[in-house]
Amino acid sequence: MKTHTATAIAHPNIAFIKYWGNRNTALRLPHTNSISANLRDLHTCTKVTFRDDLTADTLHINDQPAEDGALKRVSLFLDLVRTLAGINSNAEVISSNNFPMGAGIASSAAAFSALALAGSAATGLSLDEKALSRLARRGSGSASRSIPAGYVEWQAGSDDADSYAVSIADENHWALADCVAIINASHKIIGSSLGHTIADTSPFQEVRLQTAPQRLDECRQAILQKDFERLATVTELDSTMMHSVMMTSNPALFYWEPASISVMKEIPLLRAKGLAVCYTLDAGANVHVFCEASSKQKVHKLLAEFPGVQSVIDSEVGGPARLV
Amino acid sequence: MKTHTATAIAHPNIAFIKYWGNRNTALRLPHTNSISANLRDLHTCTKVTFRDDLTADTLHINDQPAEDGALKRVSLFLDLVRTLAGINSNAEVISSNNFPMGAGIASSAAAFSALALAGSAATGLSLDEKALSRLARRGSGSASRSIPAGYVEWQAGSDDADSYAVSIADENHWALADCVAIINASHKIIGSSLGHTIADTSPFQEVRLQTAPQRLDECRQAILQKDFERLATVTELDSTMMHSVMMTSNPALFYWEPASISVMKEIPLLRAKGLAVCYTLDAGANVHVFCEASSKQKVHKLLAEFPGVQSVIDSEVGGPARLV
Repeated sequence: MKTHTATAIAHPNIAFIKYWGNRNTALRLPHTNSISANLRDLHTCTKVTFRDDLTADTLHINDQPAEDGALKRVSLFLDLVRTLAGINSNAEVISSNNFPMGAGIASSAAAFSALALAGSAATGLSLDEKALSRLARRGSGSASRSIPAGYVEWQAGSDDADSYAVSIADENHWALADCVAIINASHKIIGSSLGHTIADTSPFQEVRLQTAPQRLDECRQAILQKDFERLATVTELDSTMMHSVMMTSNPALFYWEPASISVMKEIPLLRAKGLAVCYTLDAGANVHVFCEASSKQKVHKLLAEFPGVQSVIDSEVGGPARLV
Repeated sequence: MKTHTATAIAHPNIAFIKYWGNRNTALRLPHTNSISANLRDLHTCTKVTFRDDLTADTLHINDQPAEDGALKRVSLFLDLVRTLAGINSNAEVISSNNFPMGAGIASSAAAFSALALAGSAATGLSLDEKALSRLARRGSGSASRSIPAGYVEWQAGSDDADSYAVSIADENHWALADCVAIINASHKIIGSSLGHTIADTSPFQEVRLQTAPQRLDECRQAILQKDFERLATVTELDSTMMHSVMMTSNPALFYWEPASISVMKEIPLLRAKGLAVCYTLDAGANVHVFCEASSKQKVHKLLAEFPGVQSVIDSEVGGPARLV
């Protein structure tokens, strides 16, 4: 019996300039570039073992057998890896997160970037960063951004071959922290994979896409120049633009909860008083509050006191997906 | 001493298809048409007396001398009336509302439509509905819509002469009610007169204006055909589109409060369960919930139970501004 195994760690990421809506759903080719930062203190660790004696892929997450839906998505992704490597073996996948599941921290980016790296390495493939980012993208669009280090831009590209992420600056470039205000969602809402497919039903999606290049330039420059005020303005605008698209799509998607609004309204007031903070929200109710790493504890404490904020999870900016 | 006096009553109105942003600020010429309903159970009653012995205009609201800002705005408006009538006398204006001030019920529409009618009548002018609507518009854009009866459309027009409101259907056409969930705003926010001037800074304003004709057609048809589901869909979309413009303008205007979001998220769920309800929000935190008049008490009770809802004010659809 041949056994091929590899283990990888990858971080989730949070976007300053968002990804919402695909040009090609099957290939997860986005309409526009997006820019994010990896979250150092959160990670997924995934071990993949291809074994000839397995009759099917298996998946455990945090020591529990995964649900059928998750297993199927992973199995379809492993088919891409098997095709690349020219093998037929089934795989045992064992994954764990150091952050709470179901708290609304997007776990799919970390999951599929770790799986892309561990899965390809287990077959003996040695993919470069670009190829890994392209592969991870097929599992979850934003997973492409968890492959490179630090501050990352996913280049939309024109097809599968040139749609991948690159590092704008590594994790040591600018000491920022993300304090995530965890907010309970009172209603179940549509998942982001399905959400992407209805983005085009919003009357605002087209202009959001048309004006994205300006915001991407602004954000990239703000990061390179470490200009917090500039980063804050464009990040909050881009977040609200994405949520405006969501809330005006058909059906309307309201990810914001009452406590999300409380935090969102307070952050610009704190900034006006001199504290370097800005917010952004993914497809969920949690509010990601960026600040300088030196004020992480202060911001954590401020957020923890908000009514409706259940807990606060902090992270500084992290490195690339890597084998362990 | 000559004395000329008149008293008028007018209702506030709430828009299904919103007015946000002016083509001409001084003349309050809007970019697009808007559609609203008058609120029967709320009114402003205003008595205007032109007296040769007054050295300046005076204004009392709810038995209190008005603030300088309010007096100045009324005085400038009375200048328009004096010019139309060819008189120079100052006026005593006594106004009262039967709804709470400062609760976020837009009072300027009722105030300036009542003032336009009472003020012009007091000078001896007998303006027709069109001329009254044009005049009221100069005091507050949405006041143009409180002149005609029932369900009203303000035709944007191309200049001062053709920018006025007309009735689509009178107040007896369709027995709807507006249950207004009064929600306290935690922060003072920019007033709507100033808000209109920054609407064009949002990347979404242009497409909101470009697509308004479709929503206006949809809303007009829904009213004429008494099709609640159709009215609900377009009304909620148009409200969220206006707030998206506000939240992405520079500076960003967030009128929504936590409790606004709670109510907004619940209403479509109630509708999905068969209750004919839909929401809309003006430039404020209060949520206006439209329903069939027959279910007014039920909706009132539901809204009153929401955390963060201070009180609920109900109104059915009302008639035109009128002399008393």
